[in-house]
Amino acid sequence: SKPVTEINPHHSAGSGVNMNIIRHPRAPALTIERWFNTSQPITLESLRGKVVVMESFQMLCPGCVSHGLPQVSRVYATFPQDKVAVIGLHTVFEHHEVMTAQALETFLSEYRIPFPVGVDMPSPDNDVPQTMLSYAMRGTPTLTLIDQQGYLRQQYFGQVDDLALGAEIGALLNESLSVSENTSMASGCSDGQCAL
Amino acid sequence: SKPVTEINPHHSAGSGVNMNIIRHPRAPALTIERWFNTSQPITLESLRGKVVVMESFQMLCPGCVSHGLPQVSRVYATFPQDKVAVIGLHTVFEHHEVMTAQALETFLSEYRIPFPVGVDMPSPDNDVPQTMLSYAMRGTPTLTLIDQQGYLRQQYFGQVDDLALGAEIGALLNESLSVSENTSMASGCSDGQCAL
Amino acid sequence: SKPVTEINPHHSAGSGVNMNIIRHPRAPALTIERWFNTSQPITLESLRGKVVVMESFQMLCPGCVSHGLPQVSRVYATFPQDKVAVIGLHTVFEHHEVMTAQALETFLSEYRIPFPVGVDMPSPDNDVPQTMLSYAMRGTPTLTLIDQQGYLRQQYFGQVDDLALGAEIGALLNESLSVSENTSMASGCSDGQCAL
Amino acid sequence: SKPVTEINPHHSAGSGVNMNIIRHPRAPALTIERWFNTSQPITLESLRGKVVVMESFQMLCPGCVSHGLPQVSRVYATFPQDKVAVIGLHTVFEHHEVMTAQALETFLSEYRIPFPVGVDMPSPDNDVPQTMLSYAMRGTPTLTLIDQQGYLRQQYFGQVDDLALGAEIGALLNESLSVSENTSMASGCSDGQCAL
Repeated sequence: SKPVTEINPHHSAGSGVNMNIIRHPRAPALTIERWFNTSQPITLESLRGKVVVMESFQMLCPGCVSHGLPQVSRVYATFPQDKVAVIGLHTVFEHHEVMTAQALETFLSEYRIPFPVGVDMPSPDNDVPQTMLSYAMRGTPTLTLIDQQGYLRQQYFGQVDDLALGAEIGALLNESLSVSENTSMASGCSDGQCAL
Repeated sequence: SKPVTEINPHHSAGSGVNMNIIRHPRAPALTIERWFNTSQPITLESLRGKVVVMESFQMLCPGCVSHGLPQVSRVYATFPQDKVAVIGLHTVFEHHEVMTAQALETFLSEYRIPFPVGVDMPSPDNDVPQTMLSYAMRGTPTLTLIDQQGYLRQQYFGQVDDLALGAEIGALLNESLSVSENTSMASGCSDGQCAL
Repeated sequence: SKPVTEINPHHSAGSGVNMNIIRHPRAPALTIERWFNTSQPITLESLRGKVVVMESFQMLCPGCVSHGLPQVSRVYATFPQDKVAVIGLHTVFEHHEVMTAQALETFLSEYRIPFPVGVDMPSPDNDVPQTMLSYAMRGTPTLTLIDQQGYLRQQYFGQVDDLALGAEIGALLNESLSVSENTSMASGCSDGQCAL
Repeated sequence: SKPVTEINPHHSAGSGVNMNIIRHPRAPALTIERWFNTSQPITLESLRGKVVVMESFQMLCPGCVSHGLPQVSRVYATFPQDKVAVIGLHTVFEHHEVMTAQALETFLSEYRIPFPVGVDMPSPDNDVPQTMLSYAMRGTPTLTLIDQQGYLRQQYFGQVDDLALGAEIGALLNESLSVSENTSMASGCSDGQCAL
């Protein structure tokens, strides 16, 4: 377990003048081959106003199955869906021949995963799929937190404790949107330019 | 486990005008007979600026020993001490003859409880001690959250999940003090008048 | 968890005369398409003199992955291999198209399963494979105990506690072989005739 | 967790002639100040014919409360009481002033301990009580196994896994009494002479 020594501040509270701004990158767009558990494709834009908790996993990754997916299922059960969006991302970077979309469909059904899961789009010349590359993920499981305005706020590779994760979600839920929007403008960040 | 359906908002974000203010009571003062694990007595006033997580327990209460105290020990290990203050409150309301301060001292030593623990002051005419009465606690374990300005924000009797507790702590850590102070003035609440 | 109300006695202790014999069937032969984690195929005959703990599982069965396989891995780590043989049996009776031998190979590698695992031979006209049929298993996970002489002694569908399982293994380890051999002869049981 | 590398054999199976006998000491008598959860005092003699699982604990010993007592409570729930006797032994060797019989009574009630518990008799000139001394226990928790004939078969200081403990209980339950009685005679062991 990793102690949280700092709740990542998006901005200092205050007037918007002389702020010690910490700039966050825009969360890169999701490039998805196929979605499960949702009637229509999900974009990060459609989740604006919600804190997004994204679990990147592989169905045959033991740490994903024993820790990561159960944890985000607890997140899904704990927070209201109009405040926190939980999505899974099947980021296959090894053993592609057995972790197919068809196998994933069986896995999601057997494990009764209730939230939307997207299959990360394969890369033309790389074992690592496209969204995994654009987020610079180091492996699976990776848990990513995106704030209500679409900024990438935290990315954990491996395990994170429920207390620490809860604290980050609670802090992001309690951010003032209006102030954050100022920060967004102040930072000069636009979608294509803030890739990790 | 109890799902969190709402992160308690201290105030709506905004200008301070026409706010839909939710008033919180001041946390009642702690009335303590004796402190352990601290060189000097602790008052809530001395903890202003920190989120306070207070665990009320009895040393022979199984749920306190198996769940409550381990959970706040995780809180103590997870959050920085200058942001989150963890304190224990030994609220003996039964079997007073065996849960003495001397027995508690052995218990705290054997269980290696690292944070300050106060012995709740016995009531003259009641088995329930004074602080426990002033917080209207229903039993043990009870977990109480007090915000950075000393307002009583949440009180759980029984168990609360790490994710939900983490979210509440994270939200309280992320509150803007300046706005909250306005709220405090607006509410007109003063220390003696806002008992639960 | 299921309390064990009776340790299955193979025989009453005594002289071999006038014994109140409880007859057990021979464990049916294993019909295996392919083995993993062993240099040569395993037969029950080759395991005579050992207590056999066999875990029938499917790689996408949640209860198998979270409970059954970890439990027999503990069995494998707890008991000496010359006394207790642990084997896995991949009994695919649904979703055959994604739980292939190739997928199983990846699963066994990712989960670091150390003991031999056989792929149960598909049935010509039945989704349920051949060994699963001959043991009349009801689903997965199923844990089967075979005694040192090859008799089928216990079969659990679902979960069994470590204490109860340990007790059964300990009882089977402590059986006197010479007496049991008498029982075997007395029962007149032969391989083909004692199917469950 | 400690792997079991050998199930302690009380005797080799066979004719009683030329046996490679492993002699076990008689379990020392229990010297008890006071019993709880039983209408009359318990002696080891009264438990002949049962496997005895004895948990030595102190009510303020964390490992006893979190591991030892829950484990023997599982033993108590798993095995039939006419086969396996579970007893607790309150072996106070430190902090005598707070771990009194009165405090223990509250503890047993709060934790709903269902099996008989004896308070080990204090020693005149030693912090370690009498039964604890006669069993040469090294501390708490200590789990002691006594076979159906009253021989001391195993003593664990610290934690033992459920699988390993189950295996020992299962093996002791499956011992043939008639053969063991011969062993007992052959060993020439008598009560006072076989202290550990």
